[in-house]
Amino acid sequence: MHIDLLRSGSKSLPQQISETMAQRITSGLLQPGARLPSVRNLASSLKVSQVTVSKAYAELESHGHISCSQGKGCFVAERARMSLDAGTGWQDGYDDFLPRAQLWRNFDYSKVEYPFHMAAIHGDLLPLDSIGATMSTLVTEQPELMASYGNFQGDLELREVMCRHLQGHGIHLRSSDLMITSGTQQGIDLVARTFVGPGDTVYLEAPSYTGAIDVFAGRGAEMIFVPMDNEGMKVDVLTKLCDRRPPKLIYTNPTFQNPSGVTMSISRRQRLLELARSYRCLIVEDDPFSDLYFRKPPPPSIKSMDAEGHVVYMKSFSKVIAPGCRIACVAAGGNILSRLIAAKSASDLGSPLLNQKAVLPFIARKYEAYAEQLRTALRGRMEKAAKLLKQHAPQGVSWNLPEGGLNLWLQLPTASGISRLHELAEQEGISFLPGDVCYSGEVPSRHIRLCYSQMKEADMERGLRLFLRLLDKHLSSVR
Amino acid sequence: MHIDLLRSGSKSLPQQISETMAQRITSGLLQPGARLPSVRNLASSLKVSQVTVSKAYAELESHGHISCSQGKGCFVAERARMSLDAGTGWQDGYDDFLPRAQLWRNFDYSKVEYPFHMAAIHGDLLPLDSIGATMSTLVTEQPELMASYGNFQGDLELREVMCRHLQGHGIHLRSSDLMITSGTQQGIDLVARTFVGPGDTVYLEAPSYTGAIDVFAGRGAEMIFVPMDNEGMKVDVLTKLCDRRPPKLIYTNPTFQNPSGVTMSISRRQRLLELARSYRCLIVEDDPFSDLYFRKPPPPSIKSMDAEGHVVYMKSFSKVIAPGCRIACVAAGGNILSRLIAAKSASDLGSPLLNQKAVLPFIARKYEAYAEQLRTALRGRMEKAAKLLKQHAPQGVSWNLPEGGLNLWLQLPTASGISRLHELAEQEGISFLPGDVCYSGEVPSRHIRLCYSQMKEADMERGLRLFLRLLDKHLSSVR
Repeated sequence: MHIDLLRSGSKSLPQQISETMAQRITSGLLQPGARLPSVRNLASSLKVSQVTVSKAYAELESHGHISCSQGKGCFVAERARMSLDAGTGWQDGYDDFLPRAQLWRNFDYSKVEYPFHMAAIHGDLLPLDSIGATMSTLVTEQPELMASYGNFQGDLELREVMCRHLQGHGIHLRSSDLMITSGTQQGIDLVARTFVGPGDTVYLEAPSYTGAIDVFAGRGAEMIFVPMDNEGMKVDVLTKLCDRRPPKLIYTNPTFQNPSGVTMSISRRQRLLELARSYRCLIVEDDPFSDLYFRKPPPPSIKSMDAEGHVVYMKSFSKVIAPGCRIACVAAGGNILSRLIAAKSASDLGSPLLNQKAVLPFIARKYEAYAEQLRTALRGRMEKAAKLLKQHAPQGVSWNLPEGGLNLWLQLPTASGISRLHELAEQEGISFLPGDVCYSGEVPSRHIRLCYSQMKEADMERGLRLFLRLLDKHLSSVR
Repeated sequence: MHIDLLRSGSKSLPQQISETMAQRITSGLLQPGARLPSVRNLASSLKVSQVTVSKAYAELESHGHISCSQGKGCFVAERARMSLDAGTGWQDGYDDFLPRAQLWRNFDYSKVEYPFHMAAIHGDLLPLDSIGATMSTLVTEQPELMASYGNFQGDLELREVMCRHLQGHGIHLRSSDLMITSGTQQGIDLVARTFVGPGDTVYLEAPSYTGAIDVFAGRGAEMIFVPMDNEGMKVDVLTKLCDRRPPKLIYTNPTFQNPSGVTMSISRRQRLLELARSYRCLIVEDDPFSDLYFRKPPPPSIKSMDAEGHVVYMKSFSKVIAPGCRIACVAAGGNILSRLIAAKSASDLGSPLLNQKAVLPFIARKYEAYAEQLRTALRGRMEKAAKLLKQHAPQGVSWNLPEGGLNLWLQLPTASGISRLHELAEQEGISFLPGDVCYSGEVPSRHIRLCYSQMKEADMERGLRLFLRLLDKHLSSVR
């Protein structure tokens, strides 16, 4: 397996090796029973000493990730070695560049009855009829939309509509400054593959969005997690960290942050932009939730203050109206955007044109009124969930009421046994997101994230009751 | 700018630097008038001597790519320095990892009247009514498809349908061995990002698909182009090359190859697979055209002979029925596939579910009969184009009649002035693909690729006549 070692990094080599392998194991990329490379082979392929590898393996063994035995070698712990398909054993030794895959591991629960894990909005709340009607008309009147690859940058008419939408939110750009992507996940990925390489320093909030962490890890970045308080990322701490390691990129989700729910204050937003200017680096401002406020609109986006093209702003439209259409917008200026378009073309030749055209009339004419209704509905859900928590949450569990967005971020009294709780919940048909995957993974997290908008209201209430009962039982057992 | 230098490679460092920069310039990533880094700065960031950079710049200047002047520095040639947006000048110095973007540069001609450049099928030949009708029914009866992120691996029902389809073509797999991607371009990209890293050796046919070359270049691979004859890639030459540089991956397009049209013989297919087994490496078998034969079906796919999971087989379904839907299938075994699914999740959280469901009934029930008709129609187009070529092609231009696929690969008597021809043609509303972009770019190619299926028949004929007249004029002027 390939591991990007940073010889000038702050962590020792054994630590880097053991942490990367632990990520691969907890991501499921290395499965229980898989054989690890021998100390000699790994040392030779990573160009480190055998002592370094031995130390890393000892560390992994002490955490129970692997078990080693004299003469036989080391294996990923927990289950007996699985039988492999005949002949495909060579694949285990075939090197890859995937250090972490928590997104893959934690978001695909097709059969879960109570899906609290993914931050999404249930179909009953979405304007699917309206978008479906547009889609029907389009395939009848303009079937050629299904034949065309369209423009790599995205449909011009849709970009113009998004442009006007953003202007209404204080972001003044031209349609040529926008690109359409297949969801924000692809936007983050395109920025990373274009501008982040091995050893580049990327700053993120602690905690952060696990899909972004996966992507930056895949580029071999040195990720540094900056603590937050109730005004968002601590920019003073970030400033000091940047003195030592200048940023290549800062990833932030400043509004109703995923997963914590915290909103960055306007003064921090300004200071963050100042910092990016002084270091001539990019900020990725990931903004899925700013339209989903409960009381008052959030502060202006960082992009709205950016005159010099330091901010790549990402807004998912499909998330709020029709997630299955996978349509987001990436706004950036100058040759930052042209390079992102080049990367987009190499990654998929452009997003499906029909999907772009299908969401267009809704965004142009109905989005604002719909968002108003949606906010009310989501606030209702959040309040229902909060009420249940207040009534039934076990002692020692705490949370802040979010001011917007889709998630509750719960702090448990202990990190102990959360993976066991996760398994038990799944057996009951309940999924949640363990906080661990929102951090670098060095220290166990005692948080979990619950999304209150992914089910019908009655299901959400039933599921949450069930979960809180389970949590209570779990906490009594680990106390 | 970031350049992956291979210190153990066969090329000198100045050569590697000048070729990478030439690629960036011809790709349009470095625009006319853009200022290059100073010799001192580039030398320091690449950790090479200033002499090395000076040599590279002299080489670029001798080819007319840049012009340098004492005291002012070096600039990309051809036009005066463009005025930059106020304040965004810092972006020029912001490093990226995009060495080549010929796909971006050469495939986006929204306003061209006679698009011969892209290998695609005109809407009139596609079953858009049938797929549109399915889409209409789905959005009415199952609107929740627009709400769901679906499964990262792709819809199970569609994978089952594809599985049966592949069985009919001699490829016996389970639905769990398949993944759905947004077109084959994404499949190639996922394999590259997962398994290819800086300095890894990737073998390709000479010429090859430019979108694959872009992707492997983006991963910092050492690409080696293997010559072809009328049986496809010369596997004996490849075998010798592998002695010196063992392959990490072999990319091939064995059937009606893009761009050359050549089909690999069955014995070469077998030997190629043997080679992959002995080197424990992957073959990417990109198969867009095997259903589009004119006389007799092509030899069995390499994947159909693969018992040990060495072949990642890619077949685009949407290309043949509805390109705008962007639905392809990637078949691979064991943990090669699971790692690709992890990469897919990080790159876009899965392809749109509605698009997957929309092509499903057609592939299940109508594909084979449709393919039969399509073959006849395409053969008709090809013969029309070939007749025009025979009548009007200037002396010294040669080509082989393809046995299937969408392209004609023309050899001109000289490589001289092809970029000028390209510009002239565009002014007349005609686009073609210059052969240069199908190679590494070291040696000028005297080939061009024309697709005969991307327009209505009458337009294709009119456009081809116009183009051949232009070509005649051009060749007279450069002789």
